Amino acid sequence: MGAVNAGLVDRAPKQDRSRATRQRLLEAAVACLAEHGWAGSTVSVVAERAGVSRGAAQHHFPTREDLFTAAVEYVAEQRSTALRALFPDGPADRHAVVCALVDLYTGPLFRAALHLWVAASNEDQLRPRVTELEARVGRETHHIAVELLGADESRPGVRETVQGLLDMARGLGLANLLTGDGARRERVVAQWGEILGGVLD
Amino acid sequence: MGAVNAGLVDRAPKQDRSRATRQRLLEAAVACLAEHGWAGSTVSVVAERAGVSRGAAQHHFPTREDLFTAAVEYVAEQRSTALRALFPDGPADRHAVVCALVDLYTGPLFRAALHLWVAASNEDQLRPRVTELEARVGRETHHIAVELLGADESRPGVRETVQGLLDMARGLGLANLLTGDGARRERVVAQWGEILGGVLD
Repeated sequence: MGAVNAGLVDRAPKQDRSRATRQRLLEAAVACLAEHGWAGSTVSVVAERAGVSRGAAQHHFPTREDLFTAAVEYVAEQRSTALRALFPDGPADRHAVVCALVDLYTGPLFRAALHLWVAASNEDQLRPRVTELEARVGRETHHIAVELLGADESRPGVRETVQGLLDMARGLGLANLLTGDGARRERVVAQWGEILGGVLD
Repeated sequence: MGAVNAGLVDRAPKQDRSRATRQRLLEAAVACLAEHGWAGSTVSVVAERAGVSRGAAQHHFPTREDLFTAAVEYVAEQRSTALRALFPDGPADRHAVVCALVDLYTGPLFRAALHLWVAASNEDQLRPRVTELEARVGRETHHIAVELLGADESRPGVRETVQGLLDMARGLGLANLLTGDGARRERVVAQWGEILGGVLD
């Protein structure tokens, strides 16, 4: 009985440590991908950055593909949670929502996802994993956008309008990759936000 | 006098051959970038693909950066010329123009440019060259879009509307990278083409 209790007590911190290690690896993987691209992102580089042994990293993520798709998914989920937290009362000021949606595509997560995406287009091992991941993340982002914009998708054209807005946001993210494109982006977002308002209301 | 004439006669075919070699190298470079990405695209690989010696390739393009930026620029110019040729009478049916603009971002040139773009975001040697190139190509594409859409940029918001359309086209291109996204793209283009018509008229 005493031994069982001791086992339970021990197990909890061990699970916590394991979870913390996993999380450090995922965050290091996204940062590594954003800074060095796919070619420069190996399990060893990420393990070192996370302060974790290579063996421990491989215990959590048997393959390089496992590590990097899990990392992009983890950060995408965090990002979705943060986006919803910005607008806790649901449908909100439209301009603010459009800005927040566009911001999803300008940070290190977008850079990391873009590297993974482009690498996947040329690597057979990576392609199905990333295709499936992107479809899932894309559906979730669309879902949040519809909700926060208070868009009524039963009306014809509304679904495609929101999709086009997210495509525009992705394109703006790409334009921002090499240069600080913030001033132009603000003007485009203001104008498209206004157009959108006219369609959705 | 005879020697001078002989020289002139010889020089013309030599220049033609040199131009043809250059063109073969540029086309091979774009195809290589689209298929293998930046990491798999070296001057040697391109030279072999073009059926040209490595020395001849380096005579035309001293560095890897020279070759690939020149290649993306060359194909972008061809693409602009082809786009204008589609609408020889200037402003045209808006839906057809929007479709043609979006198509710019779905072929091998976009794939090649995307690889170059993403590589440039992590490589100091490449970044200034690609930044400058993209700015130039972007201005030209915007110019053609304004012209073919018959958009009056002196009216407030029109410039940003066209810019947003091209950002959307770029985002649609990115969405098409891993999966055949044609059916969704058509619906988005139809809807935003209509919205755009309302704004521009």
